[in-house]
Amino acid sequence: MANDPIDQLLERANTIEDLSAASALLGWDQETYMPDGAAEARSHQISTVSAMVHELYVSDETGELLEKVSVDDGDWRADFVREFTRIRDLSTKLPIEFVREMSKARSIGQTSWRKAREASDFSLFRKELEHIVELKRRHAEYLGYRENPYDALLDLYEPGVTAGTLRPVFERLKEGTRRLLEMIEGSNDKPDDSLFYSGFSRDGQIEFSREIVTALGFDFETGRVDLSAHPFCTSFATSDVRLTTRVYEHDLRSCLFGLIHEAGHGMYEQGIDERYRRTPLASGTSMGIHESQSLFWENTIARSPEFWRWAFPKLQKTFPDQLAAEDAESFYRKVNAMKPSLNRVESDELTYNLHIVLRFEIEDDLINGRLEVGDIPRAWEDKMREYLGVVPSNDAEGLLQDVHWSFGGHGYFPSYTLGKLYAAMFNATMLEQIPDRDAQVEKGEFQPTLTWLRENIHRWGKAKTPTQLVNDVCGEDLTEAPFLDYIESKIVDVYRLG
Amino acid sequence: MANDPIDQLLERANTIEDLSAASALLGWDQETYMPDGAAEARSHQISTVSAMVHELYVSDETGELLEKVSVDDGDWRADFVREFTRIRDLSTKLPIEFVREMSKARSIGQTSWRKAREASDFSLFRKELEHIVELKRRHAEYLGYRENPYDALLDLYEPGVTAGTLRPVFERLKEGTRRLLEMIEGSNDKPDDSLFYSGFSRDGQIEFSREIVTALGFDFETGRVDLSAHPFCTSFATSDVRLTTRVYEHDLRSCLFGLIHEAGHGMYEQGIDERYRRTPLASGTSMGIHESQSLFWENTIARSPEFWRWAFPKLQKTFPDQLAAEDAESFYRKVNAMKPSLNRVESDELTYNLHIVLRFEIEDDLINGRLEVGDIPRAWEDKMREYLGVVPSNDAEGLLQDVHWSFGGHGYFPSYTLGKLYAAMFNATMLEQIPDRDAQVEKGEFQPTLTWLRENIHRWGKAKTPTQLVNDVCGEDLTEAPFLDYIESKIVDVYRLG
Repeated sequence: MANDPIDQLLERANTIEDLSAASALLGWDQETYMPDGAAEARSHQISTVSAMVHELYVSDETGELLEKVSVDDGDWRADFVREFTRIRDLSTKLPIEFVREMSKARSIGQTSWRKAREASDFSLFRKELEHIVELKRRHAEYLGYRENPYDALLDLYEPGVTAGTLRPVFERLKEGTRRLLEMIEGSNDKPDDSLFYSGFSRDGQIEFSREIVTALGFDFETGRVDLSAHPFCTSFATSDVRLTTRVYEHDLRSCLFGLIHEAGHGMYEQGIDERYRRTPLASGTSMGIHESQSLFWENTIARSPEFWRWAFPKLQKTFPDQLAAEDAESFYRKVNAMKPSLNRVESDELTYNLHIVLRFEIEDDLINGRLEVGDIPRAWEDKMREYLGVVPSNDAEGLLQDVHWSFGGHGYFPSYTLGKLYAAMFNATMLEQIPDRDAQVEKGEFQPTLTWLRENIHRWGKAKTPTQLVNDVCGEDLTEAPFLDYIESKIVDVYRLG
Repeated sequence: MANDPIDQLLERANTIEDLSAASALLGWDQETYMPDGAAEARSHQISTVSAMVHELYVSDETGELLEKVSVDDGDWRADFVREFTRIRDLSTKLPIEFVREMSKARSIGQTSWRKAREASDFSLFRKELEHIVELKRRHAEYLGYRENPYDALLDLYEPGVTAGTLRPVFERLKEGTRRLLEMIEGSNDKPDDSLFYSGFSRDGQIEFSREIVTALGFDFETGRVDLSAHPFCTSFATSDVRLTTRVYEHDLRSCLFGLIHEAGHGMYEQGIDERYRRTPLASGTSMGIHESQSLFWENTIARSPEFWRWAFPKLQKTFPDQLAAEDAESFYRKVNAMKPSLNRVESDELTYNLHIVLRFEIEDDLINGRLEVGDIPRAWEDKMREYLGVVPSNDAEGLLQDVHWSFGGHGYFPSYTLGKLYAAMFNATMLEQIPDRDAQVEKGEFQPTLTWLRENIHRWGKAKTPTQLVNDVCGEDLTEAPFLDYIESKIVDVYRLG
């Protein structure tokens, strides 16, 4: 038996991670293979296993162990103790009654959100959302913060990032996006995307998508791909990473880009240093950094002209009839068509961020009490008009489109745009260090790119905080400049504005 | 919070069952979808979750709760307390050092058995098996017994059944089988099975097999079918029952009969009373009774002439070329071909039992010290010659064919033959109560059969012990007579001896 407190703590962490893996498998199975009739039994199983994880974190025994632990700085186990303590603190700060109330409100919230969205009627969800927002305000109080209660919620997903950090960045991003949208408006040669709707066989799509992510470097020895209603990535160990995608015969992009996106998450998890296994360090360091990896592969690589010069002939071989009249250059332009729209997940690489900024501003106002739930519809409409120039004609197209608020995921949305900004920062640094990266991509050589990501980002897991990681890799704090540069040059190319 | 001790005990059982379900899912996934690289991580996860289940059973808190519990006889919760106590006792009787040593020996044993089988060399496994047998002898001492230490091991799989019960039954079974084999020998019209090897497409086999088990009554709303190296059935709740099968293009029988067999197990689990959910009662009452359900559907129903009169036209539609010259009657005879062979799992309905009796006798002698591991090869050969008239030409064909001894599963084998005997007993009773059962089968009406099984057997789960169940349904104790009657009339029919 382990006698040294650090070894005892590691043993405890091993147990917790094994249980968390079991819980994650229960969740994966629920979305992929579980028979419909098992829903109730499954919810008991997941909540039992999650409760055991929670108990192990908050127990007095764990607290006593943590007090006795001492590890030298520089030893990786110091990072482990820091991360373990952070998670424990997040759990112990919440009274058990609050956890129960939140869990109930989430469950009710999701059900009533689903009904409201189906009926396209926000009033069916308003009361439940009011309760959730009230709980999130209390949540922030329990967690504590310096200036802004919303920071406490942001910190759950992106440790170290505050609304104060985000606001000026997002302002400049809005400004830059507005300018770029005007440039696009002025183009006389706009790609359209009608090609993608011409009907593509399921098997062909799946086979092609698997071929692509294999080439990018997703390792099927330690991972696999299945189908689910919404694409996701989950992992039960760095040696067991599961991706899912979905297939629409009427839209070629969903399966392919969905799977590349998830493979980006997956390669991150597969690349974490083996020594962190069965500890909380063996996972991506934040939602934002995770998104940077998925978006890097999905957009920076797989929406580049070099990528399609390599990949298009393969795609054409898979769908010879539909793509007979198409070429790589034209195809590349079509997968980069940009246009303001009502829906976040269907929006393009540029306008996506405006959907996020809108949600960030509303959430910040809500948690700070500057806005009440009843005022969201009006705020939503005003901001859509101002930022995107389009206005939803009903609630389902508007503020009911996302699931996040129904489970109290306030503070999550900014991760998506952080991912885009981090990805562009990493990309700029990578191109300095691998100047012929794009030439490699054009030859289908993705290994140097993956190796760079492994070396600089993946292997660290949660041993570096997101802020530390970004600084170590790029030598600067979060900035929107590389993203705006990157997207501008793409727009100039795609919209023939050069 | 629950205050009544029985409610507290039920809550604890719920937690245990949820964790057991998670552990079972980890096991199912390992055999179906898990990527190869995840093997080590998975073994940690399974052993962590299993250890928590064990701890919850043996903890002092559980013991104190059990002492305080009182439930009226006749209340179903009295059965729950009995079964919970039985499992706890089995766990608490074993010192933790012994559990660890056994677990290590199993793991080493399975690895060395695999190597030995590959090399067809028993000497590579002998030392490990000696250690396992020594541990099983200690295991029996810890558990306790009246006369025969082997009874303690039998009791793990078939509570209440002893070697003393089995020996006379098995003697008569050997005798009856010898007589029937002579009858077969004397037949001038023996079916052969060459038809099955003519090459059948994977998709066709899977589709047909699914169609059949759907018709029999396996519920896909609360279950599913996947592929694995060895067919099995596992369940995470009565509302979540998983079957697997395998497909050999060169043998039509493996996929179909394998899936029907597993569906028999699965329908048992699906039919257990809902009120037992999340307690140890929500599972089949013993290995023998479980096998009776799988074998009933596989052999009694799906190897009957009536079944093939209904099913053969469908099979012919699936494989028109291969089955063009075949008819239902001839097909029925071919799936019932009987002939002594070296391999247990490939043997037929009649000679199968001789493989089991052989193993039972060797195990009983081993555990009682009348036989040592070094003597098994000789005993195996002698008994094969005497009972089956065939002798293995090497160790792989002989005593290395089964995995069971390598994980210390001594006492398990008799369940298979018990299943055959119980199935025949149940079948005889069913035919008294549903005289036109076979006519229903010929019309593809399986619902009355399933309803009878649900009513008499399935719904009870572990609330009745196997002995109690058999007596309640058939009005008598275990007997081989119905099996011998059943198989004799089939032999007379198949071998044209009437």
